[in-house]
Formats: sequence, structure tokens, C-alpha cells
Amino acid sequence: MQNLFPEKIDTLFINCNIATMADNGISINKNGALAVTGEIISWVGKEKNLPDNFKIKCKKNIDCKNRWILPGFVDCHTHLVYGGSRSNEFEMRLKGTSYEEISKQGGGIFSTVNASRNASKESLFTSASKRVKTLLKQGITTLEIKSGYGLNLESELKILEVIKQLDKKFPLHIEATFLGAHALPIEFKGNPDEYIDLVTHTMLPEVKIQGIATAVDVFCETIGFSLDQTKKVFQKAKELGFNIKLHAEQLSDSNGAGLASEFNALSCDHLEYLSLSGAKKMAQHNVIAVLLPGAFYYLKETRKPPVDIFRKLKIPMAVSTDLNPGTSPVHSMTLILNMACMLFDMTCEEALLGASINGAKALGLGNTKGSIEKGKDADLVVWDIDTPADLCYLAGFNPVEMVMIKGDKINF
Amino acid sequence: MQNLFPEKIDTLFINCNIATMADNGISINKNGALAVTGEIISWVGKEKNLPDNFKIKCKKNIDCKNRWILPGFVDCHTHLVYGGSRSNEFEMRLKGTSYEEISKQGGGIFSTVNASRNASKESLFTSASKRVKTLLKQGITTLEIKSGYGLNLESELKILEVIKQLDKKFPLHIEATFLGAHALPIEFKGNPDEYIDLVTHTMLPEVKIQGIATAVDVFCETIGFSLDQTKKVFQKAKELGFNIKLHAEQLSDSNGAGLASEFNALSCDHLEYLSLSGAKKMAQHNVIAVLLPGAFYYLKETRKPPVDIFRKLKIPMAVSTDLNPGTSPVHSMTLILNMACMLFDMTCEEALLGASINGAKALGLGNTKGSIEKGKDADLVVWDIDTPADLCYLAGFNPVEMVMIKGDKINF
Repeated sequence: MQNLFPEKIDTLFINCNIATMADNGISINKNGALAVTGEIISWVGKEKNLPDNFKIKCKKNIDCKNRWILPGFVDCHTHLVYGGSRSNEFEMRLKGTSYEEISKQGGGIFSTVNASRNASKESLFTSASKRVKTLLKQGITTLEIKSGYGLNLESELKILEVIKQLDKKFPLHIEATFLGAHALPIEFKGNPDEYIDLVTHTMLPEVKIQGIATAVDVFCETIGFSLDQTKKVFQKAKELGFNIKLHAEQLSDSNGAGLASEFNALSCDHLEYLSLSGAKKMAQHNVIAVLLPGAFYYLKETRKPPVDIFRKLKIPMAVSTDLNPGTSPVHSMTLILNMACMLFDMTCEEALLGASINGAKALGLGNTKGSIEKGKDADLVVWDIDTPADLCYLAGFNPVEMVMIKGDKINF
Repeated sequence: MQNLFPEKIDTLFINCNIATMADNGISINKNGALAVTGEIISWVGKEKNLPDNFKIKCKKNIDCKNRWILPGFVDCHTHLVYGGSRSNEFEMRLKGTSYEEISKQGGGIFSTVNASRNASKESLFTSASKRVKTLLKQGITTLEIKSGYGLNLESELKILEVIKQLDKKFPLHIEATFLGAHALPIEFKGNPDEYIDLVTHTMLPEVKIQGIATAVDVFCETIGFSLDQTKKVFQKAKELGFNIKLHAEQLSDSNGAGLASEFNALSCDHLEYLSLSGAKKMAQHNVIAVLLPGAFYYLKETRKPPVDIFRKLKIPMAVSTDLNPGTSPVHSMTLILNMACMLFDMTCEEALLGASINGAKALGLGNTKGSIEKGKDADLVVWDIDTPADLCYLAGFNPVEMVMIKGDKINF
């Protein structure tokens, strides 16, 4: 798209530094300017290249006082609609209670499943709203939320409906992913194939009819579902036209990434135990690697995802909060940027690309979100920082100055 | 102090849950009420125990809607007045540059020393003000700041003056610590004893005369100062009436804690390599153990401080941000609470005590700060959480609803 000056401008940012995240790099424009027309970025470049009378012609000029503009963050993997809390389990573990003991007492994911099943739509909406607001205030403008704490038709649909409500209520763009095959519900103990049949032949078609999810995800793992079971779900999902995503190779190598790649998945997520052959398949099918350092941190894992292999094979890496009550109660993308650098040895540039354009690609939104380019949605954050690396290096604070989504300034 | 009802009340918090942090525990009062008279907490207890006409008699009732009140956090170890930034070094390390190479290029602590020496008082004040505001917004109401990036009389005094200005400007209580013996300045290379003479015989008396620090700290370490050098500084500091603190046993066991204990230090800080005999001396002299998980995290250390020994010997543990540009650019006490639990295996209760009453004790302020008790300063934070453990368990968000310091509600 040619960088011609737009005829009409609604907002003009001047006196700013812009990290566009276009062209596979941070791509810095110092002393930049950025124009927004309607919902769209209509011009981006050096301020000195603006025509003389340009500022006067614009409805609204925003002097950024040398601050930084980056694309709004894309958080491409969360489970933030859930009932209950797991802080009691966190306390118990610190006092020496084992995972097994906690599980025996009804803890772990099933405590969240029970609480989510028992929660009203209203209460799920209220608690999730708080989390969405927290993410928005910290610069996340596009968000994926998975179901997966219902594990029966009624409760899975309830969670997906709450996600739809959140998308309507909040200015963020929210993508819903159906994760019926997140864990085996207790009532199907010993009969995983039967549950997979329910997911495949009952839940999936109903989710499709209701049009309340764009992607389908599975937890493929020794403690989740087998490769064959995953394949069954994916076949039906593909047939119904869903995008495909996979929780793959988090705790062991099940070759899930290879399978997902054959289904042209948008992303494989976690990937600590990914093999070289799995990675090669991902590269071949342009699958995004979504890395989740929050879960790595909370689970005290030691095996890191193979970042060097992703680099070599040019597999784009996304990073995400994985916001969930059990393994990653992390509410901040900047904290995830920090962990991506500190725990996974990613560079600041890689982490920032992971939270923006590569996150967008992991949701199939690479054409409209995740970078500052003419013609893309005007999802922007103004940050009070000295350099983009500050977002990775400094921890525990929120230097957001302003958030804009589709051309609208967000008021908190 | 008897829990009689005060005659005059300025603010009454009702419908709240209170975690007092008194009596060496979280000490929870559910359905509590709390009265503030002037700068002081004048009553705390169960709301049902309030006299019938009490709410009407009070000037200002605050309905906390079942939220939690905790004492304002005490951040007892920071280095937050500094010039420059080290985010470029963070980036360089992630790209593979070694510490040695960075050091050769003028990086590391000496880049901060240079930038701090070259900075005007005004610019130091401006950059530090941002950091103080960030801490305050996240529930820190008492703060210690060390000098130690000047390393000559003029620049050390400049930093201490900035700390004094910050204390005047902001409602937080700020304690200044003189850390002239933080590192050997380049101009004294090969002559550490000469520098220690300068610290002891020139700087210390001048700091005393100007009355701009209450405590003296030393970095006792193979890459810092020796035990003998530390002793010289402490002898003079004691003679002049300063409180004593020590950066001890962070990277190796120099037996600094034993020495500091003999000087009845308020605290020894870091302590990853503390020996049992050092710990015993700390216990004997009622020295607080200040644990700094941020530095442990950023330095990717693997040896943890001996938390079990502190428990056995009943040595109170404080936790702190250690906010500094090199090894702990952490701006949040809740993130430190999380790291204390995740990285040092502290319980939520221990971490919370560490950020409140034990932090206060590490500053010699145990009688006025750090817990919610009748007669103590009304430094309070209202948190939008379900349970105090949420402050440790959840990461990357700031559920502060209200901050009060000495009876005044803080407006952000």
C-alpha cells in the first residue's frame, strides 16, 4: 500500500517514536507521526515528512511528547473465563501439600470445572470482566479466550456465550476458541473415547451452529488426550470450517505438533518438549509457535521450548499470558515479555514481536492486527518508556499512557 | 494498649476484612471495622462490636464492600535514585554479550555511577519521582532508599539530598541509607583501603553533620568490600550513631552477617550464602533477614537463602523490591510477594509479613509501621481481592482500591 497522505484524518499523533513491528522486526521510526482515519491507520512515517499544513487540517492532534507508540498487544492464548479461585491451592502447595493430595481433595483443574459449572453466566461474566479490564489497561487490545472448564455441552456453551458477551461489552477484539477436549471430566473416567465422541459429534456441531467460536483447540498430552483422540476432534473441526490450535508438547513429546501441522493449524502452544521433526512440520505448514512462560514459571519447569530451532527454521514465535487460575494466573503482557526474555532467553525484539504481530498471526489476524501499518486497524498504545526494551527489562509496573482501539481512545 | 473506643474519629472503615499482620501472623478480622483518629489507628476489631451510634458519630464512614485492608507495604531495601538506564545491557546480554564484555564497554554498575554523577539533582529527582509514584500506587507506604551510585562525597550527598526531597514531596515515609561502600570507584582501582578511608573519615562525618541518612550500609562481598573494610565503616558508623545494615552473603559467604550482628545491625540483606553460624549470630542479636527475590531472579541465581534456618531460629524475614537498575528493576511489591513464594518457597503468610511488619522492623520502625494495631500510624491499603493470598498468587496486576498514609487518603 502506498504511503500517500489521506484526505481525511481523525487523529494525528505527532512527536512520537514508533515501533511498528512490521517487516519481522521492531522497525523503529524515531520522531514519527501517525494518522488515523476512522478505524484504520492511514499514514505512518517521519514527522518531518508531513506536509506543512497537515497538522492544521486534522481534527485532533495528539502531542506524544517523545513517548513511544507500539501496536496494541495481542494476547493469543487465555482461559480467563472461569469460576472460583485456586489461591487456596497455591497456599497449600507452599505449605508442603503435594499436587496428588490437593487433587485427592478435589483440587486442581476439577475444582475450576466444578466452580465453572456451578457459576451463573452473570457471575462468570462479572469475574471475567475484571480480568479483561486489567489486560486492557495494560495495553492488550486483542484477546483470545478458550472454553474448556465446562466439559459438558451446557457448560461449554455457557462459557462461550460469556466470551461473546465480553466481546460485545469491551472494545477489545476477542476471539473465542472451543476447548472441549481440555481435560477428561470425572463422569467419563476410564472412557476418554466416549467423551471425545461427545466433543466431536455433539459439542462441535452445536458450537458451529451457534457460531460462537472460530477455532478449536485440544490438550494433547499424557494427562490430556492422545494423538488419535486429538485427530478425531481435528477432523471434525476441519470439516466444519474451524481454525485449528493445539496445546502441544508441554510436558512430554506426543508428536502433537506434527499432527496439528498436517491440519494446517494456526498455532501450536507451549512446546517445551517439541522435537526437531515436529518443528520442521510446523515450519513446513507455517504454524506459529505460541510460547507461554507464565505456565513454565508457575509449574517450575526446567525444560525450555526450543527457541534456537524456531529461529533456525524461521518459525514465528508468539508469547501470551495463558491467563488461567491453575498454572498461569498472570494478568500482564509486560510481565510475560520479561519472562520470555529471562526464562526462555528470547531477545527483546523477539518477545515484542511475539506479543504483537506473531500473536495476531496465531489468531489468523495477521492482516488486520499486531503491527502499525497503513490500512491496519488503529489498535495502538502510547507508552511512557525510554525504549521498547524497557517493556521487557522493567518489571511490575504499567507505563501505559493511552490505549486506542479501532481509532477510539479508551477511557478507563 | 486497651481497645477502648476513641472519643473522636476522623475516618471509619466498615464492612471490611482486615489482615492486621500483628502478632507474627496474618491475623484476620473478617467483617471488621477500623477507626482512624488524626494520623493514628484508634480502633480495630469486629464491626459487630462497634457501639450502635458509632457510625453516626464519625465524620467519614467508608464502606469497603467486603474488601480487604492490609497495612501499607514497607519496602525496606531500594536503590531507586539513579541516573541513566541499563535496558541496553539487558538487551545485549540476551543477544549473547557476556557480563565481562559489557563491563569492558563501561557497562554494569559503573555506567549507573557515571550517569548518576553526571545527572543534575533535578533530573535525578524527576526520574526517581516516577518510581516512587509507581510504588505508592501499588500499595507501598514506607520506603527505604540507599545512596551508593555516587561513590564520591559530592555525588553521594547529591543522591541523599534527592532522597530527602522525595521524602518531603511524597506522602510516603522515606528512610535514607548511606551506602558509600557500594562498589570501588574506578579512580580508586587497586586502593580499596584508601577509598574506605574516604568513606569512613570524610563521607560518614559529613553525612552525619547534614543529618540526611539514618542508616549505613556496605556491600560486603568478594566483588565488594572485605570483612575488615566493612568493620572499619561500621565502627565509625556506630560511633556516629547510625543504624547498621549490610548487603551480606549474596554471592559467597564472607561471614558478613556475623560481623553485622556483632554491631547489632537492623538487618542483613540478600543472604543466599549465609552459613548456620552466621544465622545463629543474627538470631542472637535480633537481626532481620531481608530477602530479595528480584535480584535472585534477574541474576538467574540458583542458591536460595536458607528460609528453613530462618524459620527454625525464628529470625524474622522481610522481603523487598531491591529496586535498582542493574539486578532488580522490579517496581511492585506484589510481584516480589509472588517471587518470594515461587522462588524462595516462602508461604503467603511469611511473604506478607515480610512486606509489612518485618520490613518495618528492618528499618527500626516496628513500633509505628507495618501492622494494623491501635496506636500505630494509619498507613493502610484497601485491596480488591478475595483473600490475602491473592496478593502472592496472582501476578501482573494491581488490585489497589485505596491508599491511606497517616490518616490521609492518597489521590493519584
